[in-house]
Amino acid sequence: MRDLDAHVARALALVAPLAAERLALGGALGLTAARDHAARDASPPFDNSAMDGYAVRSADVQGATPASPVVLPVAGETAAGAPPGVVPAGHAWRIMTGAPMPDGADAVVPVESTDGGVTDVTMTASVGEGRHVRRAGEDARPGDVIVHAGQCFTAVRAGALAAVGVATVDAVRAPRVAVIATGDELVDVGEDLAPGQIHDSNSVLLAGLLRQAGADPVVIAKVSDRPEELLARIAAVDADLIVTTGGVSVGAYDVVKEALAARGVEFVRVAMQPGKPQGLGLVNGTPTVCLPGNPVSVLVSFATIVAPMLRRLGGDSGGGGIVDSRAHEAAVVDEGWSVPPGRRQFMPVRFTAAGTVVPATPGGSGSHLIAGLAAAEALADVPAGAERVAPGDTVNLVRWSR
Amino acid sequence: MRDLDAHVARALALVAPLAAERLALGGALGLTAARDHAARDASPPFDNSAMDGYAVRSADVQGATPASPVVLPVAGETAAGAPPGVVPAGHAWRIMTGAPMPDGADAVVPVESTDGGVTDVTMTASVGEGRHVRRAGEDARPGDVIVHAGQCFTAVRAGALAAVGVATVDAVRAPRVAVIATGDELVDVGEDLAPGQIHDSNSVLLAGLLRQAGADPVVIAKVSDRPEELLARIAAVDADLIVTTGGVSVGAYDVVKEALAARGVEFVRVAMQPGKPQGLGLVNGTPTVCLPGNPVSVLVSFATIVAPMLRRLGGDSGGGGIVDSRAHEAAVVDEGWSVPPGRRQFMPVRFTAAGTVVPATPGGSGSHLIAGLAAAEALADVPAGAERVAPGDTVNLVRWSR
Repeated sequence: MRDLDAHVARALALVAPLAAERLALGGALGLTAARDHAARDASPPFDNSAMDGYAVRSADVQGATPASPVVLPVAGETAAGAPPGVVPAGHAWRIMTGAPMPDGADAVVPVESTDGGVTDVTMTASVGEGRHVRRAGEDARPGDVIVHAGQCFTAVRAGALAAVGVATVDAVRAPRVAVIATGDELVDVGEDLAPGQIHDSNSVLLAGLLRQAGADPVVIAKVSDRPEELLARIAAVDADLIVTTGGVSVGAYDVVKEALAARGVEFVRVAMQPGKPQGLGLVNGTPTVCLPGNPVSVLVSFATIVAPMLRRLGGDSGGGGIVDSRAHEAAVVDEGWSVPPGRRQFMPVRFTAAGTVVPATPGGSGSHLIAGLAAAEALADVPAGAERVAPGDTVNLVRWSR
Repeated sequence: MRDLDAHVARALALVAPLAAERLALGGALGLTAARDHAARDASPPFDNSAMDGYAVRSADVQGATPASPVVLPVAGETAAGAPPGVVPAGHAWRIMTGAPMPDGADAVVPVESTDGGVTDVTMTASVGEGRHVRRAGEDARPGDVIVHAGQCFTAVRAGALAAVGVATVDAVRAPRVAVIATGDELVDVGEDLAPGQIHDSNSVLLAGLLRQAGADPVVIAKVSDRPEELLARIAAVDADLIVTTGGVSVGAYDVVKEALAARGVEFVRVAMQPGKPQGLGLVNGTPTVCLPGNPVSVLVSFATIVAPMLRRLGGDSGGGGIVDSRAHEAAVVDEGWSVPPGRRQFMPVRFTAAGTVVPATPGGSGSHLIAGLAAAEALADVPAGAERVAPGDTVNLVRWSR
């Protein structure tokens, strides 16, 4: 059996970051930076007041106390948005939070330490040089890299770029993915089931997982167990990645294996549980991942194999492994479970109120238990060779969405 | 000063869950269930095989070993999607994973424990009753609640509902939110700055935060410090929530306070850092939250006050407090910081490779440091009364997106 990390390395070798597109900042939310993005303007762009109060030369208010206040004439005032003034020596200048410091001043006396006067102002506290002044560029200087290539344009990063005057960005476009579920037994969700039929839940699961991961499921289809039908559907696909479910095992009607084994897809057994039978390759030049048909296997395969491919396609620098290298996450187990011999196990878990994890499905890890999977929030990654997971053990977690 | 929890309780009292809408399952991703959603069909819908192999009466293969195999005639076969057959006593029935068990059979011998014969099959292992059989309804029975009212339709929950035949759901619609940034100093991002001007980064930040939280920013506007302009903008708003930034402090040009204090908004000081000056009320019947203008204050106020309101508006049962009650999260601090006296502090932090947290901005918690905020991944929630946060301390975390 192939080691999962080796399998993921082969999967990643099939994909490369997609093309960048120039977007308005607001339209790039959730996409990844295609290059470093540096500050255009400084933040703050000018020295400004951190408080509502009076800009002064700090030397002019030395020694001011409630018992021995200093009175200064008010030479003018500046609100936020106005150009800076000039404060003469021995004078105060009324100033609002965020307003530019007047030339000559080197500190701000907060209004709470004054009588709030408009002609003359009585200061009851001294301030040191630079006090309550935000210096131009102390947050960022022009040219400082704010968002690095490979980082996601999150809300806080978009806000940071906005603050330094960056209105357009270069983002890697979202991966376009085709989902093809296979099996004569599948009927559309909501249709009545004839004997032997089941609802096609894998398409719904995968489409949701793709959207949650920032990808665009451009095709969501199901096909029968006839190889020619699968091949025709694949031939019509225009996508960056094809994901199939079902038909990869050792049975007599394994349509995906039958159709694609001779067309560039290698079918292997991967040392993981669930999700052992896997296919991987290029079909007509399109990276193609063939997952088993059981829903829990689909979830685990998505999180461990497909999600890293999506990260690389999307230009995310956290790729390269099963877990985003920047998202190390572990948890303590509150309720143990058994582990299969010789295979790395991924157990769907949910968090308890105390922040520990327990199996999401009470019955264990049966790979067909999709309804029970509704409660799952993460996968516990249990190394091959573990005998069992016991309460109190710490497990690494794998997530399937960002 | 008002306690933050008390302030959030007042904020939550202003809002109630929005109307539900009936949607196709795939269209509800990220929205919240307006009611319990129960299984229509059982999962699995019928007894089926967990393996590729042969369905048998387990009594017929008792004692089978490689040394003493049992040979049975093959009476037929069933692929996935086909109706079940009937296996006579003393016979085997070829069966694929997921295919319905033939009547009469009570266990499956995996193909790996056979010679794979099609007329007669040689079994080299016995199986107990029920072995490798998935029972109808063992995952879910019709009527079992799969997604509870107030839970988010995630990909795994959508997949679970699909598996039990639920194609349409009732979801609470996404909150529609108006963002209005105030200040004469604001210019659109990317425009050239005149002296005293800054880019309107708060609108970008808030629009992104709202989208990440599943809300719909239907208005993103900026207005000057003239109260009549703000009031006209608000009068034109059709939204479930209005969020303003800036103009709530004690300065001489605090437009939001000036315009809205007499129109239903209460302005208070909240015992938190940053984010102390806050406004809250109903304006023309619309819940309105008035945040300070500093970007870090906006982020912290969003996470602690606006996000809980969005959860309640969106029907999320995890609301009711600053932190989603189902999302307890804590981390160990790797690099300490100082804490202001008497106020609960929210420090933007980022995760280290080791899973600990450090302040996101090297310079500390200056509320104007938005560029440095680009690295922030969570807020550390430090109780009022703490003297400082030291390396090794455990802090609770607050997130601003789901």
